[in-house]
Amino acid sequence: MTIGSRHWAIAEGYIPAPGHDDDDPRFESHEAACLLNVNDVDAHVTIMLYFSDREPVGPYRVTVPARRTLHLRFNDLTDPAPVPRETDYASVFCCDMPVVLQHTRLDSRRPALALLSTIAFAENSSG
Amino acid sequence: MTIGSRHWAIAEGYIPAPGHDDDDPRFESHEAACLLNVNDVDAHVTIMLYFSDREPVGPYRVTVPARRTLHLRFNDLTDPAPVPRETDYASVFCCDMPVVLQHTRLDSRRPALALLSTIAFAENSSG
Amino acid sequence: MTIGSRHWAIAEGYIPAPGHDDDDPRFESHEAACLLNVNDVDAHVTIMLYFSDREPVGPYRVTVPARRTLHLRFNDLTDPAPVPRETDYASVFCCDMPVVLQHTRLDSRRPALALLSTIAFAENSSG
Amino acid sequence: MTIGSRHWAIAEGYIPAPGHDDDDPRFESHEAACLLNVNDVDAHVTIMLYFSDREPVGPYRVTVPARRTLHLRFNDLTDPAPVPRETDYASVFCCDMPVVLQHTRLDSRRPALALLSTIAFAENSSG
Repeated sequence: MTIGSRHWAIAEGYIPAPGHDDDDPRFESHEAACLLNVNDVDAHVTIMLYFSDREPVGPYRVTVPARRTLHLRFNDLTDPAPVPRETDYASVFCCDMPVVLQHTRLDSRRPALALLSTIAFAENSSG
Repeated sequence: MTIGSRHWAIAEGYIPAPGHDDDDPRFESHEAACLLNVNDVDAHVTIMLYFSDREPVGPYRVTVPARRTLHLRFNDLTDPAPVPRETDYASVFCCDMPVVLQHTRLDSRRPALALLSTIAFAENSSG
Repeated sequence: MTIGSRHWAIAEGYIPAPGHDDDDPRFESHEAACLLNVNDVDAHVTIMLYFSDREPVGPYRVTVPARRTLHLRFNDLTDPAPVPRETDYASVFCCDMPVVLQHTRLDSRRPALALLSTIAFAENSSG
Repeated sequence: MTIGSRHWAIAEGYIPAPGHDDDDPRFESHEAACLLNVNDVDAHVTIMLYFSDREPVGPYRVTVPARRTLHLRFNDLTDPAPVPRETDYASVFCCDMPVVLQHTRLDSRRPALALLSTIAFAENSSG
């Protein structure tokens, strides 16, 4: 069996400015797209980023190997362009296999950490 | 292709009292409705606010341009009326195009930040 | 039009021990069930609480008036029994009208606040 | 009546390193799978864990008794193997009864607490 959807969206997106802990990747402020591929074949994912004041950027391409999870940091995307910091964005994920997508942010601009997470929006009709 | 729903609701809503950082908009306590419009035409959105002890207020009207995201702060709504602070509210979004909606709060009443976020509730039958 | 579902569940539930700010209700550690009723008639809600080691308790009965939101604190439930603190629980909401339900916790056991929120689980077949 | 789904996934998973409060289980950094079984019979759950760089591990087996909630800490899973700390993972839950699943993390690596929570992803077609 499989689980997930082939089309997902995250309407929230914002990578905070560098903070107290950016020398330690565990504590660096970041946003993650947590992808799960339970299928027995690799899932090829294309990501489009949307902004408030410019045309979409992408596609970014990542592969989630068969039976693996990929906790992709938006901070690490570079091709075709890095994700600007302190900038509102949103993202759409299209996959050739059903996957599950969850959105998480760690904000370490202050010494205390702040976390948010939510299941992303799955397009049911595209499962 | 498109993604989203034309009808959404956020049952939680509360803008905290002014706090430590209200002179810096990045850190001002706020609630945001993060809207994503992947369509090639603008999405016109009407927002109704619901309260615990008075009639609904609205409609507020915003446009999410084609292929754009809008991270709308409830703090910034003024017409027909500003959103009262320290007051429970909820909101309903109706759009002429499918959009995706995510709800986020930053609470900076204390020096440490607190964050929450969730996908809003999409009415499936109206997609 | 209406929006929501008549049957909802929140699998997480935990009211933290009293903390630093329990004299100020804004900062008292609490869990809230944020209910939105956009209908033109009142919604009558029955709530059952589930525990890890005892039979369910309830029904609790609340009314969400027509065109109102109710941010109900589990801390305030008393009939048929208060919600025990520092105890795992879960909850099921059944309504005679479609409503929207979001779950939020404020944890103020430490001077810094922590927040979580999520849309609850809606039973689609009962909408 | 019942509520829930028989197949769920959580794409995010990460147990932080030991922190300030690990001698008090209330404050120990942890991840929880909050399960609710409203049925009048026990729900038998098998859990598979997925990683970024190795084959899935499992099944883990837990029972959620009839009319009970189980707030299962991933920290406590030991058979067939403990969950590695500071390691990205994801999880899939398959049940013989419909249950509801919510994902929560408490991060106490710093003196201030951070919380996240979200409803997990339910496979609709398997309800």
